[in-house]
Amino acid sequence: MLAKVDYQKAKSKTINFFDRVGIVLTSEEKQSIEVADFGLNELEVQGLELITYINNEHYCAKELVLFPNQTCPEHKHPHVGEIKGKTETFRCRWGKVWLYVEGKPSEAMQATVPVGSEDYYTVFHEVELNAGEQYTIPPNTLHWFQADGRGAIISEFSTTSRDESDIFTDPRIKRTPEVAE
Amino acid sequence: MLAKVDYQKAKSKTINFFDRVGIVLTSEEKQSIEVADFGLNELEVQGLELITYINNEHYCAKELVLFPNQTCPEHKHPHVGEIKGKTETFRCRWGKVWLYVEGKPSEAMQATVPVGSEDYYTVFHEVELNAGEQYTIPPNTLHWFQADGRGAIISEFSTTSRDESDIFTDPRIKRTPEVAE
Repeated sequence: MLAKVDYQKAKSKTINFFDRVGIVLTSEEKQSIEVADFGLNELEVQGLELITYINNEHYCAKELVLFPNQTCPEHKHPHVGEIKGKTETFRCRWGKVWLYVEGKPSEAMQATVPVGSEDYYTVFHEVELNAGEQYTIPPNTLHWFQADGRGAIISEFSTTSRDESDIFTDPRIKRTPEVAE
Repeated sequence: MLAKVDYQKAKSKTINFFDRVGIVLTSEEKQSIEVADFGLNELEVQGLELITYINNEHYCAKELVLFPNQTCPEHKHPHVGEIKGKTETFRCRWGKVWLYVEGKPSEAMQATVPVGSEDYYTVFHEVELNAGEQYTIPPNTLHWFQADGRGAIISEFSTTSRDESDIFTDPRIKRTPEVAE
Protein backbone atom coordinates (compact mmCIF):
# COMPACT_ATOMS: atom_id res chain seq x y z
CA MET A 1 0.00 0.00 0.00
CA LEU A 2 1.39 3.41 -1.03
CA ALA A 3 2.02 5.80 1.88
CA LYS A 4 0.15 9.09 1.49
CA VAL A 5 3.40 11.08 1.45
CA ASP A 6 4.79 8.95 -1.40
CA TYR A 7 1.54 9.34 -3.28
CA GLN A 8 1.69 13.14 -2.97
CA LYS A 9 5.32 13.15 -4.07
CA ALA A 10 4.54 11.02 -7.12
CA LYS A 11 1.60 13.26 -7.98
CA SER A 12 3.79 16.38 -7.92
CA LYS A 13 6.38 14.65 -10.05
CA THR A 14 3.68 13.68 -12.55
CA ILE A 15 2.42 17.27 -12.75
CA ASN A 16 6.02 18.40 -13.41
CA PHE A 17 6.21 15.98 -16.34
CA PHE A 18 2.99 17.38 -17.81
CA ASP A 19 4.12 20.98 -17.22
CA ARG A 20 7.38 20.35 -19.00
CA VAL A 21 5.64 19.51 -22.28
CA GLY A 22 2.81 22.03 -21.95
CA ILE A 23 0.02 19.57 -21.13
CA VAL A 24 -2.49 21.61 -19.17
CA LEU A 25 -4.75 20.00 -16.53
CA THR A 26 -7.57 21.61 -14.56
CA SER A 27 -7.13 21.75 -10.75
CA GLU A 28 -9.77 19.03 -10.45
CA GLU A 29 -7.81 16.81 -12.84
CA LYS A 30 -4.60 17.44 -10.91
CA GLN A 31 -6.39 16.17 -7.81
CA SER A 32 -7.51 13.03 -9.59
CA ILE A 33 -4.12 11.91 -10.93
CA GLU A 34 -3.84 8.18 -10.38
CA VAL A 35 -0.62 6.74 -9.00
CA ALA A 36 -0.57 2.96 -9.44
CA ASP A 37 2.08 0.95 -7.62
CA PHE A 38 0.11 -2.25 -8.31
CA GLY A 39 0.50 -3.25 -4.66
CA LEU A 40 4.19 -4.07 -5.26
CA ASN A 41 5.54 -1.25 -3.09
CA GLU A 42 8.35 -0.30 -5.49
CA LEU A 43 6.71 2.52 -7.42
CA GLU A 44 9.88 3.86 -9.04
CA VAL A 45 10.59 0.40 -10.49
CA GLN A 46 7.12 -0.91 -11.31
CA GLY A 47 4.36 1.66 -11.47
CA LEU A 48 2.40 4.08 -13.63
CA GLU A 49 0.96 7.56 -13.25
CA LEU A 50 -2.04 8.70 -15.25
CA ILE A 51 -4.91 11.06 -15.78
CA THR A 52 -8.15 9.96 -17.43
CA TYR A 53 -9.68 12.68 -19.61
CA ILE A 54 -12.76 10.73 -20.58
CA ASN A 55 -13.99 7.16 -20.15
CA ASN A 56 -17.50 6.62 -21.46
CA GLU A 57 -19.36 3.58 -22.79
CA HIS A 58 -17.62 3.96 -26.18
CA TYR A 59 -14.11 5.36 -25.83
CA CYS A 60 -11.44 6.38 -23.36
CA ALA A 61 -8.56 8.86 -23.46
CA LYS A 62 -5.77 9.04 -20.90
CA GLU A 63 -2.34 10.59 -20.52
CA LEU A 64 0.23 8.23 -18.99
CA VAL A 65 3.52 9.13 -17.32
CA LEU A 66 6.41 6.76 -16.78
CA PHE A 67 9.17 8.02 -14.51
CA PRO A 68 12.77 7.32 -15.62
CA ASN A 69 13.22 3.56 -16.14
CA GLN A 70 9.78 2.88 -14.65
CA THR A 71 7.92 -0.21 -15.92
CA CYS A 72 4.21 -0.86 -16.27
CA PRO A 73 4.02 -4.59 -15.52
CA GLU A 74 2.79 -7.22 -17.99
CA HIS A 75 -0.97 -7.54 -18.33
CA LYS A 76 -3.81 -7.96 -20.80
CA HIS A 77 -7.36 -6.70 -21.24
CA PRO A 78 -9.50 -9.83 -21.69
CA HIS A 79 -12.94 -10.18 -23.20
CA VAL A 80 -15.54 -10.24 -20.42
CA GLY A 81 -18.68 -12.11 -21.43
CA GLU A 82 -20.11 -10.31 -24.44
CA ILE A 83 -17.85 -7.30 -23.92
CA LYS A 84 -14.71 -7.25 -26.06
CA GLY A 85 -11.42 -6.57 -24.31
CA LYS A 86 -9.91 -3.11 -24.59
CA THR A 87 -8.15 -2.14 -27.83
CA GLU A 88 -5.63 0.59 -27.10
CA THR A 89 -3.42 2.94 -29.06
CA PHE A 90 -0.27 4.18 -27.31
CA ARG A 91 1.12 7.39 -28.76
CA CYS A 92 4.42 8.57 -27.37
CA ARG A 93 4.24 12.31 -26.71
CA TRP A 94 7.61 12.83 -25.13
CA GLY A 95 10.63 10.67 -24.29
CA LYS A 96 11.19 7.09 -25.33
CA VAL A 97 9.25 3.98 -24.41
CA TRP A 98 9.91 0.32 -25.13
CA LEU A 99 6.68 -1.63 -25.52
CA TYR A 100 6.67 -5.43 -25.44
CA VAL A 101 3.85 -7.45 -26.97
CA GLU A 102 3.17 -11.04 -27.95
CA GLY A 103 5.12 -12.24 -31.00
CA LYS A 104 8.66 -13.16 -31.98
CA PRO A 105 11.01 -12.15 -29.13
CA SER A 106 13.38 -9.37 -30.21
CA GLU A 107 17.04 -10.33 -30.38
CA ALA A 108 18.51 -7.31 -28.63
CA MET A 109 16.10 -6.14 -25.97
CA GLN A 110 16.58 -2.57 -24.79
CA ALA A 111 14.53 -2.62 -21.57
CA THR A 112 15.57 -4.34 -18.35
CA VAL A 113 13.10 -6.72 -16.74
CA PRO A 114 12.55 -5.60 -13.11
CA VAL A 115 14.86 -7.58 -10.84
CA GLY A 116 13.03 -10.15 -8.73
CA SER A 117 10.02 -10.16 -11.07
CA GLU A 118 11.58 -12.06 -13.99
CA ASP A 119 8.99 -14.85 -13.75
CA TYR A 120 6.18 -12.45 -14.51
CA TYR A 121 7.50 -11.11 -17.80
CA THR A 122 6.80 -13.48 -20.68
CA VAL A 123 6.43 -11.44 -23.91
CA PHE A 124 9.44 -9.84 -25.55
CA HIS A 125 8.52 -8.58 -28.99
CA GLU A 126 9.88 -5.03 -28.80
CA VAL A 127 8.33 -1.89 -30.27
CA GLU A 128 10.29 1.31 -29.67
CA LEU A 129 8.18 4.43 -29.52
CA ASN A 130 9.69 7.89 -29.72
CA ALA A 131 7.75 11.16 -29.65
CA GLY A 132 5.16 11.12 -32.44
CA GLU A 133 5.16 7.34 -32.86
CA GLN A 134 2.25 5.09 -31.93
CA TYR A 135 1.18 1.47 -31.77
CA THR A 136 -2.22 -0.18 -31.38
CA ILE A 137 -2.54 -3.24 -29.11
CA PRO A 138 -5.42 -5.63 -29.91
CA PRO A 139 -7.68 -6.92 -27.09
CA ASN A 140 -6.58 -9.87 -24.97
CA THR A 141 -2.88 -9.39 -25.87
CA LEU A 142 -0.17 -9.50 -23.20
CA HIS A 143 1.95 -6.35 -23.06
CA TRP A 144 4.25 -4.34 -20.80
CA PHE A 145 6.26 -1.17 -21.27
CA GLN A 146 9.21 0.71 -19.85
CA ALA A 147 10.59 4.24 -20.24
CA ASP A 148 14.24 5.00 -20.84
CA GLY A 149 16.34 7.02 -18.37
CA ARG A 150 14.44 10.26 -19.02
CA GLY A 151 10.92 8.89 -18.52
CA ALA A 152 8.07 9.23 -21.00
CA ILE A 153 4.62 10.67 -21.59
CA ILE A 154 2.17 8.55 -23.56
CA SER A 155 -1.31 9.41 -24.82
CA GLU A 156 -3.63 6.44 -24.71
CA PHE A 157 -6.71 6.26 -26.96
CA SER A 158 -8.87 3.18 -26.48
CA THR A 159 -12.22 1.54 -26.15
CA THR A 160 -13.85 1.76 -22.72
CA SER A 161 -11.42 1.19 -19.82
CA ARG A 162 -12.41 -1.49 -17.30
CA ASP A 163 -9.28 -1.67 -15.13
CA GLU A 164 -10.88 -4.07 -12.68
CA SER A 165 -10.93 -6.86 -15.26
CA ASP A 166 -7.24 -6.50 -16.31
CA ILE A 167 -5.24 -9.70 -15.91
CA PHE A 168 -1.66 -9.28 -14.68
CA THR A 169 0.93 -12.02 -15.12
CA ASP A 170 2.29 -11.33 -11.61
CA PRO A 171 -0.21 -12.85 -9.14
CA ARG A 172 0.98 -10.46 -6.40
CA ILE A 173 -0.46 -7.50 -8.30
CA LYS A 174 -3.58 -5.67 -7.20
CA ARG A 175 -4.69 -3.18 -9.83
CA THR A 176 -6.88 -0.98 -7.67
CA PRO A 177 -4.58 1.62 -6.16
CA GLU A 178 -4.70 1.93 -2.42
CA VAL A 179 -3.30 4.85 -0.49
CA ALA A 180 -2.71 4.76 3.25
CA GLU A 181 -4.41 7.54 5.19
CA MET B 1 -11.63 24.23 -54.43
CA LEU B 2 -8.45 25.04 -52.54
CA ALA B 3 -5.46 25.93 -54.74
CA LYS B 4 -2.45 23.73 -54.11
CA VAL B 5 -0.33 26.69 -53.04
CA ASP B 6 -2.91 27.71 -50.42
CA TYR B 7 -3.11 24.14 -49.22
CA GLN B 8 0.67 23.96 -48.76
CA LYS B 9 0.67 27.30 -46.96
CA ALA B 10 -2.09 26.17 -44.60
CA LYS B 11 -0.26 22.90 -43.94
CA SER B 12 2.94 24.73 -42.95
CA LYS B 13 0.96 27.05 -40.72
CA THR B 14 -0.67 24.02 -39.07
CA ILE B 15 2.72 22.40 -38.45
CA ASN B 16 3.89 25.66 -36.85
CA PHE B 17 0.94 25.54 -34.47
CA PHE B 18 1.81 21.97 -33.45
CA ASP B 19 5.51 22.83 -33.09
CA ARG B 20 4.73 25.75 -30.83
CA VAL B 21 3.11 23.49 -28.22
CA GLY B 22 5.48 20.54 -28.63
CA ILE B 23 3.08 18.22 -30.46
CA VAL B 24 5.33 15.94 -32.50
CA LEU B 25 4.16 14.40 -35.79
CA THR B 26 5.96 11.87 -37.95
CA SER B 27 6.92 13.00 -41.49
CA GLU B 28 4.16 10.75 -42.83
CA GLU B 29 1.62 12.43 -40.57
CA LYS B 30 2.83 15.87 -41.63
CA GLN B 31 2.13 14.83 -45.22
CA SER B 32 -1.39 13.73 -44.35
CA ILE B 33 -2.54 16.90 -42.59
CA GLU B 34 -6.04 17.66 -43.76
CA VAL B 35 -6.98 21.21 -44.71
CA ALA B 36 -10.75 21.56 -44.97
CA ASP B 37 -12.18 24.68 -46.57
CA PHE B 38 -15.56 22.97 -46.92
CA GLY B 39 -15.75 24.14 -50.52
CA LEU B 40 -16.44 27.71 -49.36
CA ASN B 41 -13.17 29.17 -50.62
CA GLU B 42 -12.56 31.36 -47.57
CA LEU B 43 -10.31 29.10 -45.52
CA GLU B 44 -9.14 31.75 -43.05
CA VAL B 45 -12.77 32.51 -42.17
CA GLN B 46 -14.44 29.10 -42.36
CA GLY B 47 -12.13 26.11 -42.28
CA LEU B 48 -10.36 23.55 -40.15
CA GLU B 49 -6.95 21.85 -40.15
CA LEU B 50 -6.44 18.44 -38.62
CA ILE B 51 -4.42 15.30 -38.27
CA THR B 52 -6.04 11.92 -37.55
CA TYR B 53 -3.92 9.75 -35.25
CA ILE B 54 -6.23 6.75 -35.35
CA ASN B 55 -9.70 6.00 -36.69
CA ASN B 56 -10.71 2.37 -36.26
CA GLU B 57 -14.08 0.62 -35.95
CA HIS B 58 -14.30 1.63 -32.27
CA TYR B 59 -12.65 5.00 -31.61
CA CYS B 60 -10.97 7.96 -33.22
CA ALA B 61 -8.39 10.50 -32.05
CA LYS B 62 -7.51 13.69 -33.91
CA GLU B 63 -5.72 16.94 -33.27
CA LEU B 64 -7.54 19.99 -34.66
CA VAL B 65 -6.12 23.42 -35.41
CA LEU B 66 -8.14 26.59 -35.77
CA PHE B 67 -6.26 29.58 -37.15
CA PRO B 68 -6.95 32.96 -35.48
CA ASN B 69 -10.71 33.68 -35.61
CA GLN B 70 -11.28 30.68 -37.87
CA THR B 71 -14.66 28.93 -37.63
CA CYS B 72 -15.60 25.31 -38.18
CA PRO B 73 -19.10 25.65 -39.64
CA GLU B 74 -22.26 24.26 -38.04
CA HIS B 75 -22.88 20.55 -38.53
CA LYS B 76 -23.98 17.35 -36.83
CA HIS B 77 -23.05 13.68 -36.89
CA PRO B 78 -26.33 11.83 -37.50
CA HIS B 79 -27.21 8.21 -36.83
CA VAL B 80 -26.85 6.22 -40.07
CA GLY B 81 -29.08 3.14 -40.09
CA GLU B 82 -28.03 0.99 -37.15
CA ILE B 83 -24.83 3.00 -36.62
CA LYS B 84 -25.07 5.65 -33.90
CA GLY B 85 -23.81 9.12 -34.77
CA LYS B 86 -20.39 10.19 -33.53
CA THR B 87 -20.02 11.19 -29.88
CA GLU B 88 -17.05 13.52 -29.55
CA THR B 89 -15.01 15.06 -26.75
CA PHE B 90 -13.24 18.33 -27.53
CA ARG B 91 -10.31 19.08 -25.25
CA CYS B 92 -8.68 22.46 -25.68
CA ARG B 93 -4.88 22.02 -25.63
CA TRP B 94 -3.86 25.55 -26.34
CA GLY B 95 -5.61 28.86 -26.93
CA LYS B 96 -9.28 29.59 -26.53
CA VAL B 97 -12.25 28.21 -28.40
CA TRP B 98 -15.93 29.06 -28.26
CA LEU B 99 -18.12 26.08 -28.94
CA TYR B 100 -21.81 26.45 -29.73
CA VAL B 101 -24.28 23.62 -29.23
CA GLU B 102 -28.05 23.14 -29.13
CA GLY B 103 -29.71 24.57 -26.01
CA LYS B 104 -30.63 27.94 -24.53
CA PRO B 105 -28.87 30.68 -26.58
CA SER B 106 -26.24 32.50 -24.52
CA GLU B 107 -26.99 36.14 -23.82
CA ALA B 108 -23.57 37.60 -24.61
CA MET B 109 -22.03 35.65 -27.43
CA GLN B 110 -18.26 35.97 -27.78
CA ALA B 111 -17.78 34.56 -31.29
CA THR B 112 -18.72 36.37 -34.49
CA VAL B 113 -20.87 34.52 -37.01
CA PRO B 114 -19.06 34.55 -40.38
CA VAL B 115 -20.36 37.44 -42.47
CA GLY B 116 -22.53 36.28 -45.37
CA SER B 117 -23.23 32.92 -43.74
CA GLU B 118 -25.60 34.09 -41.00
CA ASP B 119 -28.43 31.92 -42.30
CA TYR B 120 -26.43 28.76 -41.66
CA TYR B 121 -25.70 29.28 -37.98
CA THR B 122 -28.68 28.30 -35.82
CA VAL B 123 -27.38 27.12 -32.41
CA PHE B 124 -25.98 29.60 -29.91
CA HIS B 125 -25.51 27.91 -26.55
CA GLU B 126 -21.92 28.91 -25.77
CA VAL B 127 -19.27 26.78 -24.08
CA GLU B 128 -15.90 28.50 -23.64
CA LEU B 129 -12.94 26.14 -23.63
CA ASN B 130 -9.49 27.22 -22.47
CA ALA B 131 -6.41 24.99 -22.32
CA GLY B 132 -7.19 21.94 -20.17
CA GLU B 133 -10.96 22.26 -20.50
CA GLN B 134 -13.14 19.83 -22.43
CA TYR B 135 -16.73 19.19 -23.48
CA THR B 136 -18.47 16.11 -24.87
CA ILE B 137 -21.00 16.53 -27.69
CA PRO B 138 -23.70 13.82 -27.99
CA PRO B 139 -24.50 12.30 -31.40
CA ASN B 140 -26.86 14.06 -33.78
CA THR B 141 -26.37 17.45 -32.06
CA LEU B 142 -25.74 20.60 -34.08
CA HIS B 143 -22.50 22.39 -33.17
CA TRP B 144 -19.94 24.87 -34.49
CA PHE B 145 -16.82 26.41 -33.02
CA GLN B 146 -14.49 29.36 -33.41
CA ALA B 147 -11.04 30.27 -32.07
CA ASP B 148 -10.21 33.65 -30.61
CA GLY B 149 -7.58 35.96 -32.14
CA ARG B 150 -4.68 33.65 -31.30
CA GLY B 151 -6.13 30.44 -32.76
CA ALA B 152 -6.50 27.15 -30.91
CA ILE B 153 -5.42 23.53 -30.78
CA ILE B 154 -8.06 20.97 -29.81
CA SER B 155 -7.67 17.25 -29.15
CA GLU B 156 -10.70 15.31 -30.30
CA PHE B 157 -11.52 11.90 -28.80
CA SER B 158 -14.58 10.20 -30.31
CA THR B 159 -16.33 7.16 -31.63
CA THR B 160 -15.50 6.21 -35.23
CA SER B 161 -15.32 9.17 -37.59
CA ARG B 162 -17.46 8.96 -40.74
CA ASP B 163 -17.02 12.44 -42.18
CA GLU B 164 -18.92 11.60 -45.35
CA SER B 165 -22.18 11.35 -43.39
CA ASP B 166 -21.84 14.70 -41.57
CA ILE B 167 -24.74 17.06 -42.15
CA PHE B 168 -23.85 20.74 -42.52
CA THR B 169 -26.46 23.46 -42.08
CA ASP B 170 -24.98 25.38 -45.02
CA PRO B 171 -26.12 23.58 -48.21
CA ARG B 172 -23.13 25.04 -50.14
CA ILE B 173 -20.71 22.95 -48.05
CA LYS B 174 -18.88 19.92 -49.41
CA ARG B 175 -17.09 18.08 -46.60
CA THR B 176 -14.63 16.12 -48.72
CA PRO B 177 -11.61 18.36 -49.16
CA GLU B 178 -10.55 18.96 -52.72
CA VAL B 179 -7.22 20.37 -53.73
CA ALA B 180 -6.48 21.67 -57.21
CA GLU B 181 -3.44 20.13 -58.86
